[in-house]
Amino acid sequence: MIIHIEGLSFNTIIGILDFERTAPQAVVVNCDIEYSYKNNFLDYSLITQLIQTHMHEKQFELIETALLSLISKIKETFPEISNINLTIKKPDIIDNCIVSVSHQRSFL
Amino acid sequence: MIIHIEGLSFNTIIGILDFERTAPQAVVVNCDIEYSYKNNFLDYSLITQLIQTHMHEKQFELIETALLSLISKIKETFPEISNINLTIKKPDIIDNCIVSVSHQRSFL
Amino acid sequence: MIIHIEGLSFNTIIGILDFERTAPQAVVVNCDIEYSYKNNFLDYSLITQLIQTHMHEKQFELIETALLSLISKIKETFPEISNINLTIKKPDIIDNCIVSVSHQRSFL
Amino acid sequence: MIIHIEGLSFNTIIGILDFERTAPQAVVVNCDIEYSYKNNFLDYSLITQLIQTHMHEKQFELIETALLSLISKIKETFPEISNINLTIKKPDIIDNCIVSVSHQRSFL
Repeated sequence: MIIHIEGLSFNTIIGILDFERTAPQAVVVNCDIEYSYKNNFLDYSLITQLIQTHMHEKQFELIETALLSLISKIKETFPEISNINLTIKKPDIIDNCIVSVSHQRSFL
Repeated sequence: MIIHIEGLSFNTIIGILDFERTAPQAVVVNCDIEYSYKNNFLDYSLITQLIQTHMHEKQFELIETALLSLISKIKETFPEISNINLTIKKPDIIDNCIVSVSHQRSFL
Repeated sequence: MIIHIEGLSFNTIIGILDFERTAPQAVVVNCDIEYSYKNNFLDYSLITQLIQTHMHEKQFELIETALLSLISKIKETFPEISNINLTIKKPDIIDNCIVSVSHQRSFL
Repeated sequence: MIIHIEGLSFNTIIGILDFERTAPQAVVVNCDIEYSYKNNFLDYSLITQLIQTHMHEKQFELIETALLSLISKIKETFPEISNINLTIKKPDIIDNCIVSVSHQRSFL
């Protein structure tokens, strides 16, 4: 089973530029989480809360660091996960395109 | 050949929360069905009806259970299918993202 | 190199139902064509014309037959192609979803 | 890590037809750049500037040539890149579809 979280949108402090440290900016998170469904299911609403809480708390400088930290945090909280593919977009940071960074990690 | 059904939208009872058991909510089903085309073709309209009828009848609690049951039902009805990838979205269940669960099964 | 033709939209006779034989309906064709670029390039505009002309002439009954015939025709016309992935959508045939059929063929 | 640049939109001279040599046309560039993140990160904003500057300077005749040249230029500037998948669209060149060409190159 793969849980897909698409377009999780919220504002948070992220980035290394001066204006990025002082005001929250829009981010959009996409996430594909694979797990083996037996009797327990993964609660998608807990995952979306975990992502937002963790990013608000950490106020990451780099998307790269945010991705690595979030993937560890999600796996720690839901050990039954076998694969995570996570993308963080900054939809407003460049005016004629949308930039994002993604990272995939397998736990098999 | 792969038949693609995109954005099959209807309301049905699905979920484990109290309000999900009492009122139908929007779901969106995507489906990629691979089959070997010889002389017979798969009728896409029968597949879309089967998905809707089965979900209305069963009123699943978990998307995971719905996926497994639908995949079995579709394969049973159309034995020439060699691969199914099925996704069920709940577009309205969380307000700042779209969640879905998908499952892929090969019959080769 | 892969040439992508996205959302090629036109009306044509296609289908097996009575109303589908008498009036043209909307179709949308997507196409990924892989070829080895040396000194010659593939003319994307000739490909889009070929697809439309061939479908208008043949007035296919099944999307499956149309896919097989178009793939052969495109390969015949442009022998340097090594892979074709072709999708034909009928965007208006079912009211609460979009159906399409795709077929991929490698010539390596 | 994969950096994604989506929908990078600008006008530039590109193409072999007479009107394409005299007036800039809209292009849209998509780009997936894989690199091994250790202590240094790739600056997405430098990549978007490099793509635009290079296309403005070279005024390519073929999308195919533009892709090969851009991929070499990006790799030269950011040697830590291990894989590039680049797509250039001409959204306005054909009226009933969108055409693009993509090329993928691995440096592993």
